[in-house]
Amino acid sequence: MTSILIIGGGGMIGQKLASSYAKSETVSLLDMTFPENSDLNVKKILGSVSDASIMEKTLNELPGTIFYLASIVSGEAETNFSKGWDINVHAFWSFLAQIRDQYLKSEGRYKPKVIFTSSIAVFGSPFPNKISDDFLTAPRTSYGAQKVCCELMLNDFIRKGFCEGLAIRLPTICVRPGKPNLAASSFFSGIIREPLNGLKANLPVSTDVRHWHASPRSAVGFLRHAESLDRNALTFNSALNMPGLSCTVEEQIEALRSIAGNEAAKLIMSKPDEKIIEIVKGWPKNFDTKIALELGFIAESSFEEIIQIYIEDDLQSNLIKN
Amino acid sequence: MTSILIIGGGGMIGQKLASSYAKSETVSLLDMTFPENSDLNVKKILGSVSDASIMEKTLNELPGTIFYLASIVSGEAETNFSKGWDINVHAFWSFLAQIRDQYLKSEGRYKPKVIFTSSIAVFGSPFPNKISDDFLTAPRTSYGAQKVCCELMLNDFIRKGFCEGLAIRLPTICVRPGKPNLAASSFFSGIIREPLNGLKANLPVSTDVRHWHASPRSAVGFLRHAESLDRNALTFNSALNMPGLSCTVEEQIEALRSIAGNEAAKLIMSKPDEKIIEIVKGWPKNFDTKIALELGFIAESSFEEIIQIYIEDDLQSNLIKN
Repeated sequence: MTSILIIGGGGMIGQKLASSYAKSETVSLLDMTFPENSDLNVKKILGSVSDASIMEKTLNELPGTIFYLASIVSGEAETNFSKGWDINVHAFWSFLAQIRDQYLKSEGRYKPKVIFTSSIAVFGSPFPNKISDDFLTAPRTSYGAQKVCCELMLNDFIRKGFCEGLAIRLPTICVRPGKPNLAASSFFSGIIREPLNGLKANLPVSTDVRHWHASPRSAVGFLRHAESLDRNALTFNSALNMPGLSCTVEEQIEALRSIAGNEAAKLIMSKPDEKIIEIVKGWPKNFDTKIALELGFIAESSFEEIIQIYIEDDLQSNLIKN
Repeated sequence: MTSILIIGGGGMIGQKLASSYAKSETVSLLDMTFPENSDLNVKKILGSVSDASIMEKTLNELPGTIFYLASIVSGEAETNFSKGWDINVHAFWSFLAQIRDQYLKSEGRYKPKVIFTSSIAVFGSPFPNKISDDFLTAPRTSYGAQKVCCELMLNDFIRKGFCEGLAIRLPTICVRPGKPNLAASSFFSGIIREPLNGLKANLPVSTDVRHWHASPRSAVGFLRHAESLDRNALTFNSALNMPGLSCTVEEQIEALRSIAGNEAAKLIMSKPDEKIIEIVKGWPKNFDTKIALELGFIAESSFEEIIQIYIEDDLQSNLIKN
C-alpha cells in the first residue's frame, strides 16, 4: 500500500483523484478548503501551501507519492501579481526544499515521487499549427511564467536525485462541475455546464476561438499514469504536454446542441469581455503530443465524449444526491 | 546624466562596464568584493545581493539603469545546490520585488531599466547545428535552470510595467583576465591566458569540443547596446541570444599558435576532468542570432581577434602596471 498525498486535494481534480485512490491506498489531502458534502474516507489537512510548518508536519509522514495540484488560477495570478508568484512559485520551492531536507536527513532513503500539474499556459504566441513536444516555453501571462519556473525547479531536483517525478502540462479541463472560478478559462466549462443545468451562460469570446481540452476523467488518468511511469527511463527534459482535443467554441456549442438540443444551446449568451479575450488570445490552439501518446497517456477524441463524461460523472450523480 | 547601478560590479565584466561609463555617468557598484588595485572613480557598496537591507538602501538611490550581473558561477551552482538557487534566483526575485515596491511607492514615476545577464547555459542538448532565436530552453544544469527562471521573472515584471529592461544571453566570455574561477567554462580562457603569461594551462576536455565565445569587450558592448534599446519596441518574449564566434578548442589553440608561437601552444597540457567533460557536453556549440544582429549587437568574427583583444585590453595594461 502506497501512501499518497494530494496537495490541493480540496479542488475538483484533487477530489476526483483522491476518490480514485481511496479504496486501495492511504490518502491524505492538504488544502485551504474542502467541499462540505464530500464523503471521501481520507485524511484532510487544513492549511496553505505557503505555511511552512503545516507543510513540514505533512511531509514528516513521508508520503511515497505526492501530487502537487495547488495553484492560484490564471485570472487571479494576472490580477494579484504578488499572490500569484508567492503561492505558485515560492511556496512550491519551499515544498521542494523540504523534500530535499527529508531526503538528506534520511540519507537518501526517503525519495518520493512528485507529480506536478503544469499547464499549456506555459506557451505563448506566435504558435505553429500544432505545438510539438519541443516547442519553446515563452509564456505571456504571470500564471504561465510561474508554471515554467516550477517545471524547471522540479526538473532540477529530479536531476540531482532528491526526488523522482514528472511535471505534466494539462489541457484546459472541461467540463468542470460546480461553480465558475477565477480562471480565465472558466467559461469553456460554463457554456456547457450551465445550459445542461437549465441555466444561462455568458460567452466572453467569439465562437471561432480554438482551444485544447480534456475531461476531468482524463486529467485523473494523466496523473495516475504519470505516477506509474519510471521517470529515469524518460529521455525528455522538463515537462510533458498531455494529449487532448482541439476544437472551437462553435464546435463545443454544436456538440451541446446535438446532445441537449437547441433550447440548451440557446442559453449561451454572447457577452464579450476584453480582459478574457486578451488572455485567451495568447493561448495555444492545437498540439502534436507525440511523446505522451507513445507513453500511453490518452484523452477524448470528440467534444461530445467530453460532454457525456460530465453527464455521467457529475451531472447524474448530482441529480441523485439532490 | 544617468545614474547607473551595477550589481555584481566587482567582477570582471562589471569592472570593465563601470570603467566604460565612469567618465560620463554617475556609477555605483554593489558586490561582495572589489579588486584591490582598481582606480575607478565610482561608488562602491560592499554587500551581498541576498542582504535585503543593503539592496533596499542601494535601490533607495533610484538608479535609472541597473545592470544585474551578480551570479554564482555554473560549476559552483552545480556543487552547492542551495547556494546556487538562493543567490541566482531567490535574491534576484527579492531585487525585482524591491524595484516593484519603489515603482508602486512612486506611483509609477520610478521605472528603471534592468539589464540582466543570462547565459547560453539555458539551452540543453540535443541541439540543432545552429540554435535559433526561438529554440527551447531546456537546461541540463542548475545554473541554466536558474538563469531561465530569472529571465521569466524579469520578463513578467517588464510585461506588467514595473520596470523596463532586457535579459541577454551571453556567450562564454573569453579570454577572461585574472585567475581561473569556479565556472566550468574557466578553461576556455585559461588555455589562452596562461600560455600568454608564460604559464602552463590544463585542458580538461578534448580538442574537438566546439563552443560559442565572445570577448569581454563584446560583453560590455552587448550590455551598453541592450541599455540603449527601447524594450517596448521589441517583439520577442523573454531573453535574447547574443552574437558570438563558434570554434573548437583546436581552433583556439591554432589561433594562439599563430599569434604567440609554438612554445606558447606547448604550454597547454591535456588533463581530462570527467565532471567538466560531462557539463560541457550539455552546452551549445553554435547559434544563428538573427534578431540580435538585426538589432545591432556585434561580436568577433575570428578567435585571433578575441586573443588580440585580450592582449590589448588586459595583458598589455597589466604589463604596464607591473
